[in-house]
Amino acid sequence: MDKALLDFKAGRITLEEAKSLVAGDVFAKLEDAGLDLFRQVRTGAPEVIYCAAKTPSQVREIFQVLIQKDGLVMGTRATDEHFQAVEDLGLEFDADAGMLYKPCNVSLTGLVLIVSAGTSDRNVTLEAARTASLMGSRVQVEHDCGVAGIHRLFALKDTLRQARVIVAVAGMEGALPTIVAGMTPRPVIAVPTSVGYGASLGGLAPLLTMLNACAPGVAVVNIDNGFGAGYLAHLINVGGSEKS
Amino acid sequence: MDKALLDFKAGRITLEEAKSLVAGDVFAKLEDAGLDLFRQVRTGAPEVIYCAAKTPSQVREIFQVLIQKDGLVMGTRATDEHFQAVEDLGLEFDADAGMLYKPCNVSLTGLVLIVSAGTSDRNVTLEAARTASLMGSRVQVEHDCGVAGIHRLFALKDTLRQARVIVAVAGMEGALPTIVAGMTPRPVIAVPTSVGYGASLGGLAPLLTMLNACAPGVAVVNIDNGFGAGYLAHLINVGGSEKS
Amino acid sequence: MDKALLDFKAGRITLEEAKSLVAGDVFAKLEDAGLDLFRQVRTGAPEVIYCAAKTPSQVREIFQVLIQKDGLVMGTRATDEHFQAVEDLGLEFDADAGMLYKPCNVSLTGLVLIVSAGTSDRNVTLEAARTASLMGSRVQVEHDCGVAGIHRLFALKDTLRQARVIVAVAGMEGALPTIVAGMTPRPVIAVPTSVGYGASLGGLAPLLTMLNACAPGVAVVNIDNGFGAGYLAHLINVGGSEKS
Amino acid sequence: MDKALLDFKAGRITLEEAKSLVAGDVFAKLEDAGLDLFRQVRTGAPEVIYCAAKTPSQVREIFQVLIQKDGLVMGTRATDEHFQAVEDLGLEFDADAGMLYKPCNVSLTGLVLIVSAGTSDRNVTLEAARTASLMGSRVQVEHDCGVAGIHRLFALKDTLRQARVIVAVAGMEGALPTIVAGMTPRPVIAVPTSVGYGASLGGLAPLLTMLNACAPGVAVVNIDNGFGAGYLAHLINVGGSEKS
Amino acid sequence: MDKALLDFKAGRITLEEAKSLVAGDVFAKLEDAGLDLFRQVRTGAPEVIYCAAKTPSQVREIFQVLIQKDGLVMGTRATDEHFQAVEDLGLEFDADAGMLYKPCNVSLTGLVLIVSAGTSDRNVTLEAARTASLMGSRVQVEHDCGVAGIHRLFALKDTLRQARVIVAVAGMEGALPTIVAGMTPRPVIAVPTSVGYGASLGGLAPLLTMLNACAPGVAVVNIDNGFGAGYLAHLINVGGSEKS
Amino acid sequence: MDKALLDFKAGRITLEEAKSLVAGDVFAKLEDAGLDLFRQVRTGAPEVIYCAAKTPSQVREIFQVLIQKDGLVMGTRATDEHFQAVEDLGLEFDADAGMLYKPCNVSLTGLVLIVSAGTSDRNVTLEAARTASLMGSRVQVEHDCGVAGIHRLFALKDTLRQARVIVAVAGMEGALPTIVAGMTPRPVIAVPTSVGYGASLGGLAPLLTMLNACAPGVAVVNIDNGFGAGYLAHLINVGGSEKS
Amino acid sequence: MDKALLDFKAGRITLEEAKSLVAGDVFAKLEDAGLDLFRQVRTGAPEVIYCAAKTPSQVREIFQVLIQKDGLVMGTRATDEHFQAVEDLGLEFDADAGMLYKPCNVSLTGLVLIVSAGTSDRNVTLEAARTASLMGSRVQVEHDCGVAGIHRLFALKDTLRQARVIVAVAGMEGALPTIVAGMTPRPVIAVPTSVGYGASLGGLAPLLTMLNACAPGVAVVNIDNGFGAGYLAHLINVGGSEKS
Amino acid sequence: MDKALLDFKAGRITLEEAKSLVAGDVFAKLEDAGLDLFRQVRTGAPEVIYCAAKTPSQVREIFQVLIQKDGLVMGTRATDEHFQAVEDLGLEFDADAGMLYKPCNVSLTGLVLIVSAGTSDRNVTLEAARTASLMGSRVQVEHDCGVAGIHRLFALKDTLRQARVIVAVAGMEGALPTIVAGMTPRPVIAVPTSVGYGASLGGLAPLLTMLNACAPGVAVVNIDNGFGAGYLAHLINVGGSEKS
Repeated sequence: MDKALLDFKAGRITLEEAKSLVAGDVFAKLEDAGLDLFRQVRTGAPEVIYCAAKTPSQVREIFQVLIQKDGLVMGTRATDEHFQAVEDLGLEFDADAGMLYKPCNVSLTGLVLIVSAGTSDRNVTLEAARTASLMGSRVQVEHDCGVAGIHRLFALKDTLRQARVIVAVAGMEGALPTIVAGMTPRPVIAVPTSVGYGASLGGLAPLLTMLNACAPGVAVVNIDNGFGAGYLAHLINVGGSEKS
Repeated sequence: MDKALLDFKAGRITLEEAKSLVAGDVFAKLEDAGLDLFRQVRTGAPEVIYCAAKTPSQVREIFQVLIQKDGLVMGTRATDEHFQAVEDLGLEFDADAGMLYKPCNVSLTGLVLIVSAGTSDRNVTLEAARTASLMGSRVQVEHDCGVAGIHRLFALKDTLRQARVIVAVAGMEGALPTIVAGMTPRPVIAVPTSVGYGASLGGLAPLLTMLNACAPGVAVVNIDNGFGAGYLAHLINVGGSEKS
Repeated sequence: MDKALLDFKAGRITLEEAKSLVAGDVFAKLEDAGLDLFRQVRTGAPEVIYCAAKTPSQVREIFQVLIQKDGLVMGTRATDEHFQAVEDLGLEFDADAGMLYKPCNVSLTGLVLIVSAGTSDRNVTLEAARTASLMGSRVQVEHDCGVAGIHRLFALKDTLRQARVIVAVAGMEGALPTIVAGMTPRPVIAVPTSVGYGASLGGLAPLLTMLNACAPGVAVVNIDNGFGAGYLAHLINVGGSEKS
Repeated sequence: MDKALLDFKAGRITLEEAKSLVAGDVFAKLEDAGLDLFRQVRTGAPEVIYCAAKTPSQVREIFQVLIQKDGLVMGTRATDEHFQAVEDLGLEFDADAGMLYKPCNVSLTGLVLIVSAGTSDRNVTLEAARTASLMGSRVQVEHDCGVAGIHRLFALKDTLRQARVIVAVAGMEGALPTIVAGMTPRPVIAVPTSVGYGASLGGLAPLLTMLNACAPGVAVVNIDNGFGAGYLAHLINVGGSEKS
Repeated sequence: MDKALLDFKAGRITLEEAKSLVAGDVFAKLEDAGLDLFRQVRTGAPEVIYCAAKTPSQVREIFQVLIQKDGLVMGTRATDEHFQAVEDLGLEFDADAGMLYKPCNVSLTGLVLIVSAGTSDRNVTLEAARTASLMGSRVQVEHDCGVAGIHRLFALKDTLRQARVIVAVAGMEGALPTIVAGMTPRPVIAVPTSVGYGASLGGLAPLLTMLNACAPGVAVVNIDNGFGAGYLAHLINVGGSEKS
Repeated sequence: MDKALLDFKAGRITLEEAKSLVAGDVFAKLEDAGLDLFRQVRTGAPEVIYCAAKTPSQVREIFQVLIQKDGLVMGTRATDEHFQAVEDLGLEFDADAGMLYKPCNVSLTGLVLIVSAGTSDRNVTLEAARTASLMGSRVQVEHDCGVAGIHRLFALKDTLRQARVIVAVAGMEGALPTIVAGMTPRPVIAVPTSVGYGASLGGLAPLLTMLNACAPGVAVVNIDNGFGAGYLAHLINVGGSEKS
Repeated sequence: MDKALLDFKAGRITLEEAKSLVAGDVFAKLEDAGLDLFRQVRTGAPEVIYCAAKTPSQVREIFQVLIQKDGLVMGTRATDEHFQAVEDLGLEFDADAGMLYKPCNVSLTGLVLIVSAGTSDRNVTLEAARTASLMGSRVQVEHDCGVAGIHRLFALKDTLRQARVIVAVAGMEGALPTIVAGMTPRPVIAVPTSVGYGASLGGLAPLLTMLNACAPGVAVVNIDNGFGAGYLAHLINVGGSEKS
Repeated sequence: MDKALLDFKAGRITLEEAKSLVAGDVFAKLEDAGLDLFRQVRTGAPEVIYCAAKTPSQVREIFQVLIQKDGLVMGTRATDEHFQAVEDLGLEFDADAGMLYKPCNVSLTGLVLIVSAGTSDRNVTLEAARTASLMGSRVQVEHDCGVAGIHRLFALKDTLRQARVIVAVAGMEGALPTIVAGMTPRPVIAVPTSVGYGASLGGLAPLLTMLNACAPGVAVVNIDNGFGAGYLAHLINVGGSEKS
């Protein structure tokens, strides 16, 4: 399939031609999983493995198939136990981001700026960063720019315009994305986090805040979903670069 | 009762003495209501009438008793119909704030700053303003200072320090109080409003935002409760002035 | 201010220079509003007026100022009453989308594809379309492509790849954005609508569905927020075009 | 009671006759339980034991009575500890499904198709499968057919028509049952799972999705209730076969 | 298409053959709608029109196309205004059920029993009944069998066993489906209604009750969704009859 | 039936004998309703008609049957329209309580004390009072005893001990029942009302308050359910008197 | 205080006299607690200690004071650790009910019937039973009478009438209290439990069911609050007996 | 910066002058944090560290910078592990309040009264107390004054008037702040706690109670947010004292 994929991405063959070339293995039937190997042809990125509810041996079974393919290989919400089950396959582990991945050499493009409201949002922030950079985006991370001390954000004024897309990560009240969107013409992806207590309701409070952002230009992903934000940021970032 | 109240407020008699003096009419038994005439002695302010769920004739019955007493007379969430039922008693009506009140001449003291996020929050903002000024606070109102254009707030930087207390009114995402609290050493009373739609959940979204404010120095009142905010702001404001 | 804005956008002056040039009228102080005239300099688009909680006369007061400026002038959630109050100012009204706007001639760029799940989502869909096209995006709208008859969506396969960004509008269960995101490498902006009853909870059900989309590449805006989706789609669309 | 039951099921005696025959032991009074032994006469299946909130010794006490009866004996949400307490009674344990049961030889009938959205939904899927097959249905299980890669589902097109009923298991956004219902004339039982995080709200998000399914022909059971789905699927499946 | 459909249903041609025969008009592109004409081939029933959020003229536009096809034509949640817009097309209106339909002569089969808890649930009950009988099921309706007077339900004991499937409709506490499921071996479809006040939360209370039914054999549809229940009941009912 | 009922209540016949005597008309089958005429034998009180979701003609049809029986006849949540439909049957209407009833002469017994927090809770309070007194309890009503002026409650100290049961009605924060329960050895039935706004969530706030009452001796009925509280209060009240 | 209490309860002195006699020790000031020793005079029962959020040493400090008083001494939600800290004070421990208490010899009166829906509700059921019997009520407990097998409940028909009050304990769907209330003229106290999973929402589902009970005569206490139900049941039970 | 701060606080320099003096180190850029050192100039108090979601080494890194500054140094929600990581820096630990702080000698001013409803609220109460006293307020704490025994609160009648502000801490039903506000003219800060179970919903019940307080003069902070209440109480307290 890999050659068909490359040919398709390079524009040498059409989608229909690619499909017929890979017909034999559109998805791999494993014991408990049906791997969607064709996804990269359709969406430009391969299936990413959500490790949280899987046993280490299920995770290993899946990665044994994926690792043989070219291109990006990633798993999210992985633990040390998952890593130990796949380490010998050549995967690396970013423990802060909770991500397993196959090391790769992509040239980085564009700029994704990732700002967080507080030090406590660090893991989610790093998951977004790791995702976007593995996919091929140049990434800049700025921790702890919360709106209680808004001058920390003003120091980033120029970067907020240079980036092609901004990811804003915040727990508690989640006001950061609105403030950011009021300072830049770039799309802002808002990531609520479960940092907080009581009326933060496990992250529902910042989620609602972000959905009601009074500055336009903001869209929201699930609570603690750094991966989803990094993934989408990359799509937007390369959308900007592909025509250059 | 009025004399006992004045004597008590002036320190000429004790609370116990005031109580025995007014024993005869501690509360007025009406058809459907038991007016708490003694509240001013205990709390420094009289009972305020919540008109929303009362008929015009119930409201009239209550104000007929209250209007005969000295001091503050107020009703909230009143409509034109309520006003017509009591106009001949000498009450005035602030239609924007939805408030009925007996006109009075108090000398204003201190400074309560009331800032709102948007023009749509106007009625709640004016309810807070009317309440605090009827009680005796000097009030400054600044409409439409929402955080999507944060420089509007920065223009108030000095006033934010000169006021003894700040009321911050906001719907939608409700980020205004946090930003304000990060710019001033003064107490901030946050008022969520029901302005918004969808995930604003009738004002629950800004309510949660404000309860999770990452800047300390903020406390919150009920959704659209301009009255409660203005009342509390006055208590804090005069707390500052009474010792001078 | 208009000249400073144009100079800044053309790169002839810096942000700081633009700021000092417009210092005199950074925002316009009206009776109940503080118009954020500087927003276009910061974010590339002017303040848009949310008409829902404003009286026709408040809306008129605001548009009287805005209409004198160059560039985009828009109001959302407007009714016929609002329109009648501003018609003589030269504004037009898209009754389906509930939008007021100053007619303008922008050359359209890129491609924003807007797909809806059902005929009942039509108003929200058209609000997104009107917003994006007024801002300068070329827009294609496809109504009634819901997933209960998924072949309707498959007929759009090629357009799903040609567009630079896709807006997917759906009420009830809200599954459309996930299916779309599984078929395209483009960013997908999901708009839940309040179409439905009972357990749709006024649009919360599709909102939650979209936040939990199992296909990455999706971010979500508020329930019925066609405006926000169209606005963000335009930002992403021109991000792709500006470098060409 | 067993003979009365068989006679009744074979139509040799009426319900009233069966009732009088078993009058002596309609339910068994244990220390903490009143076993509903008559349920099989009324509903065609015996009482199934919900082990989750019971101690191993309570579970043992109950199974000691049940095991002496003919026919189906099952317990759900059992752990290894429960199993150890009853192993010597002749019960078997399906650890993946969390089910205890008396091995039995029923000839399987009809076809129940059980599809899941992801590998993480495996336990709930297997609980449904084990339940339906113990009751006497032929079962086919297809894991990991989620809608992000919808071609995996299309490969099952024919089976979706051959089955008499379909169980669709999904967490996160829960869109699978709608897509299935749009592809088949068979009843679809939707099972939301608690797989997910943040705005999945412990499975409430897919539950709401499924209740709002825009394709008719879907009904929903409780979150993670594989047992209930398998049980109902069997009732529908045999309803189809009993007249043949 | 109609001939292809009939041939396919009669087994004279395969699904693939049917598809190629109808390729030209798989769905009809109207102004605001894309009618899924092929749905009957896939699912055995045509697209049903949800009128609630559509204007009378949109509804008319859609029925003008549908009425020309053979077979079932239905619309739900219709009002008198919708009816007046389509009356001349030959549609009839069941005002109690809120349903528009083309009169037809189908021979009725099997038995669907529909029981309601109270007189107030009447409209939802009749929507279920009308749907199932239009699709071809024989239907028996029993109003007002609520569990506060459980002997009313016991009087239906035999019918509860003769029916092939039971629809149980209840508001307030929603206990009816559980009691029914404990008395019959037949599948029970539970329909919560919005009848009630306060803590009924618009029907969420009976919805939750039914999802937690302690008697197995129950699945649930959306609040007030009589249509969905009647539709599914028919699918189950004919599943039982088709092999005879 | 009426004689059997009286005989049973007087202890002259057993429950089983009463049942056989009334077997012919245990419930009356109307067009849309199955009246539970036997309820008085089982529970000591007849079926009460919930008028809210019924048309005037449905209500009339039901009362035409009920009015012919001896004893209590009541309907709740009735409007003027309902009353006009049944006035000629001899029913009376308490418009404040929203109740229809047949006038009757019962000698009143015991004492039910009903206290409300505010004038706005009046309708719910009067529904409780009317219900209990129609059933035969002596009732004392005290409006507007809210905890913000707790001395109003202290004035009732002795009555709080003399009553056999207390109904405490409150909206907004709903603290009244706790305070009452801390002052009396009598059972307290708490009735939350929907009086309030914003975070009162239609009465959910006082409902939760009452469920969490830190003083024991309190149980809660549905929001605005004055009828249920009055009914239960009567049962408790006569429980106390029946042995005397 | 103890003598004043006894004199007051015997009617030898008035409430005011009792108050003045015990003025010296109306409450005991401990390190972290202010024990409400006077509660028995007001409410007929002493303060009961909620052990859940207290350390063993806090619990010991409190019981050291209480144990010296005459009459009832109880603590709820206690663990083995709490017991070990107070065992030497002479307290006993009911581990199933989680209750600490001073053994006492009261003659039991009346009859409280406690029925539970399932074996899993056992601990809450026993907490209610222990509370009522320690206070002086005769108690009968019937476990596992859930409505899925409703004949188990019918076997209790006579007891349901003989008891002066009934406590009905149920998790999952919580339908038991309604069914009971439809079978008896006695007050029913409903106790929702947290037994269940998924959409039981930790007991909110049965709580809502019970609040919406369609049979009158039911009031509800907090989730898992066996203590509150037993306490209130005792108050009602002795209300019935005190006049005999 | 410290000298600029002192000069500014003493009124010797303006805010602008202070800003330019400290320009070099407005915030400290650490590995994962951007410390807002300038906050004390703006708000009168330094940044306080929320330790809950930080590792001991992150906490140490931050305090190493803060400890070198003059003035207040505090961390909240700290554990023993956090303390061990910073003990050698000279910080002390209040284990009950969960707070780390630099010991300091401030002269205490005014009076903050902190009352709690129960012993179980102790930790939150002590967090409020420690915060206010570290900032410079004189603090009086009264534990266990819950409204079930309201005379405990009446014993504080005079203190309720002498304090400049009152913090009222309560879980379960949370009625304490309303009762307090009805007894004093001072501002009341309400702190809901998560003490309770079932329908207390982790503290949401008392939160809602307090937001709906029927006595004005109350504002609310987040659940268990003793720190926020103590902080705000201090601001109000010194607002009263600063002019003397």
